[in-house]
Parts: sequence; structure tokens; C-alpha cells
Amino acid sequence: MKKSNNKLLICKGINNAISILGSSRFNIEHVDILKEGKALNSDRMKIFLKSLNITILEKEQFYKKYPDGRTQGIVIGFRGNIVENNIPSFDDEKDICLLALDQIEDPQNFGQIIRTAECAGINGIIFPKHHSAPITQSVLQVSQGAFVNIPLYEVTNLNHEILQLKKSDFWIIGLENSIHAKPWYEVEFSGKTVIVVGSESRGIRHKVFESCDFTATIPMQGKTNSLNVSAAVSAVAFERIRQLKKG
Amino acid sequence: MKKSNNKLLICKGINNAISILGSSRFNIEHVDILKEGKALNSDRMKIFLKSLNITILEKEQFYKKYPDGRTQGIVIGFRGNIVENNIPSFDDEKDICLLALDQIEDPQNFGQIIRTAECAGINGIIFPKHHSAPITQSVLQVSQGAFVNIPLYEVTNLNHEILQLKKSDFWIIGLENSIHAKPWYEVEFSGKTVIVVGSESRGIRHKVFESCDFTATIPMQGKTNSLNVSAAVSAVAFERIRQLKKG
Repeated sequence: MKKSNNKLLICKGINNAISILGSSRFNIEHVDILKEGKALNSDRMKIFLKSLNITILEKEQFYKKYPDGRTQGIVIGFRGNIVENNIPSFDDEKDICLLALDQIEDPQNFGQIIRTAECAGINGIIFPKHHSAPITQSVLQVSQGAFVNIPLYEVTNLNHEILQLKKSDFWIIGLENSIHAKPWYEVEFSGKTVIVVGSESRGIRHKVFESCDFTATIPMQGKTNSLNVSAAVSAVAFERIRQLKKG
Repeated sequence: MKKSNNKLLICKGINNAISILGSSRFNIEHVDILKEGKALNSDRMKIFLKSLNITILEKEQFYKKYPDGRTQGIVIGFRGNIVENNIPSFDDEKDICLLALDQIEDPQNFGQIIRTAECAGINGIIFPKHHSAPITQSVLQVSQGAFVNIPLYEVTNLNHEILQLKKSDFWIIGLENSIHAKPWYEVEFSGKTVIVVGSESRGIRHKVFESCDFTATIPMQGKTNSLNVSAAVSAVAFERIRQLKKG
């Protein structure tokens, strides 16, 4: 069951447009396209432009409506469900990896993680309804349309969901520096896994950390205190792909 | 020889403060600290707070001066050289990896790449003086102080520098999708290497691409068109560390 969401959402740019228009999940309210803009001349956009009943705006009109820029000449208004609430059991699946975000606070990081996770073949992102950055338009914008193609599970109690997945034969891997942590490339990511990452400032909460079967760490090679959480997700998620491809 | 730079630079936040104050490269002009703020109570800041002649500002004064937030209660004004112009020869070194950025346009990406590269033990970043995002305060800010701890080589002709490094026994690896590209984990990153990444919209320029000995690609696992360039750098730079640690 999906949560009903009738709020009008606005996304800008070609990548977002292609993802949203290519999905049947959303009600498209309007598509504003800039005359002589990048989107109108984009080969990737052509298939959508043909099938849409579009409004092409003159420069003055378009920039008056969207003064902030970064539109690539296209803005979409749409309604639909962005998140799901029930995580499937994945009973018959082999290699499944879910990413659990324990209270990510920064919309930029949240959007970037969605984008990276989708590119790295992660099967879904679980995040708590409270104490986490909400899925705002800027999160969707930063994700560059990836939010359409990866399930986003918004749950009431993150630790409860992790424990349920554990019962369904998922291994829970916490990405956190601890005395028992192994280097990220020595952790086995095949099969069913949940990778847990913590908030930018406080890491994984104690209770969630206790639910982890293993902890993986990315040791810093320089002097800087810590890696950005979305960069850490990229390193780990693509290490998983390397392991799967190498067999 | 370092380029002289007398412009007053402003950086906010604890990570930036620790890096800048911990280095002898800069002239510290002022340090503004918020009374009862996060920085004043930070254990990591204590050593610096003792040795500094600091001004502690009342809330009203501080927020009037820095209305944008994201300061963590500390703002530093400093002068000094951020970039270098001459790349050393690295003659007696074994495992050296430089990152060449061919016209990165987005300050957020540039800053994030500096941060990730420093965390992943990259030995320096080469970027062209023209047609690239300049090193602005927002680039420094996003780097979270990493700019202090990794050499940033600003060069007039990127391809010329790459060809010089090639003569000094560096292998040049282009990160780009091409018919001859190998998956990123099949490329050998030990020894002396330069990893070349291209601009967000246009990739690596033709001439620079021709200077590459190999090309590496990160195949997308989902539907989204492309990975953010800083996420790609993270995946590749930490794969290099994995290879080095595994011997």
C-alpha cells in the first residue's frame, strides 16, 4: 500500500524530466519548456516531447516563472507517491541489498545517496519518518530523477524494520568505525544484506548499531576527519558490485 | 613557487577551522566564535581555542554578521596560497596517484572531490586555470578543510602536464565510457597513476582523452543516466586503496 500524496511537486532539469515522464506512477500537471532551451534540443528528450501536450515558453516568461535557474530549460509539476511504507519480503531473490539511513539530516546528502544507490544497483532505501531529512523537492532535485527508479521505504521504526529483515535472512552491516569493524572490502556483500549508515554528526544510534551483525569501516588515508556520507555509500555500494561481478 | 594570494578568505565550521588553524600556511586574520556555540564546546577545538587570541561573540552579534548559518559557531578569516602551480616529479616515490579534473564546472562537485580525494589518499589534484570552476569560498567550504591537506595544482595547460607526467612514468587512466574501457576494478592502480575525470556535461575533452593509456568505466546498474562525478571519484579512489592494501 502506498501512501497517498496529492501535493504538487516541482522538478527541474533533463534527467529528472526523463525519469518522471518515463514512469506511469505520476500525474503530470504541467511541463514548462523554454523556447530555444537545452531540453527542447536534447536528443534524449525527443521521444517525450513528441507524446506530450507541451507549453513552450518564451525566455522572458520562463525566467520570470523560474528565476533560480538550473532548469536546463524544463520544469515539471507532478503529483504522486514518492515513498512506500511496506518493505517486501524478497523471499525468492538472491542478491538483494537495501540501504538503511539512520537519520540523515542534510537534503543534499540524502538526494546524492538516492542517486548513487540507484546507479550502484541498491534495491531500496529505508529511512525513518521522523528525525530524518524529509523528502523535499531539493532531495528529489539532487537525486537527478533516481527517486523514480529506486524504492524509498519510509518507516516508523527503523530498528524494528531492520530486525524484521534480520529474521528474513538478511545480514545487517553497519558502516561505522568500531574496534570490531573490518575494512569495507573484507566484508562479504553477496546474498541478502542491509547496509546501515548513520547521521552526519552522530553516526548510527546505539540501538540500531546493536542490531548489526558486522561493522565495516573505510579507514581515512589523509588528515581530514571524515568522508562525506554519500561518498562512503559510493565506495561501499560499488565494492559490492565488484564482489558480485567477480563472483 | 606558490602563487601569491592576498585575498581575504572566509571559511565556516569546525572541520574547516581545525584544518586551517592546524596549518602554518595561512595568515589568520580573525576567528569569530559564537558564545555557547558548538565550536566553543567541541573537544576537537579545545587545543586551538587555548592558543588563540579569540573573540567570542554574543548570539545577536554573531548571527547579524553571519546570517546564512551552517557555521557551527565558528568563522575564520584568513589569507594564503590555496593552489600551487608546479607539479613535483615524484621521482623517488612508489605509489603515487594524482587526480586530473578536466573542466569540472560545479563548485559543489569540485569541493566534494577535494574532500573525497584527500580522504582516499590521492596525492594531488590537477586542474586547468581556465574553463573550470574557480576555487571559490564555496569550494573550500564544501571540502571541509581537506583543501589544506592535499596539493591543488592549478595549471595553464592540463594536457601538457599530463604528457609531462607520462614522460615521468605515470600511467594515465581516463574515467570514461568507451568501447575499450575496462570495469574500474580491472584497472591496475598501483605505481604511478593519473586518474582523469571529465566535466559533468561533456566528459573528457578529445585531446586529453587521446593522452590516456587506459580507460576505466563504472557501468551503471540502474536506469539513471549517470553517476555524480564526485561519487565516481569515490568508487575509483577507494578501489585503488583496496588494491594497494590487498597487495
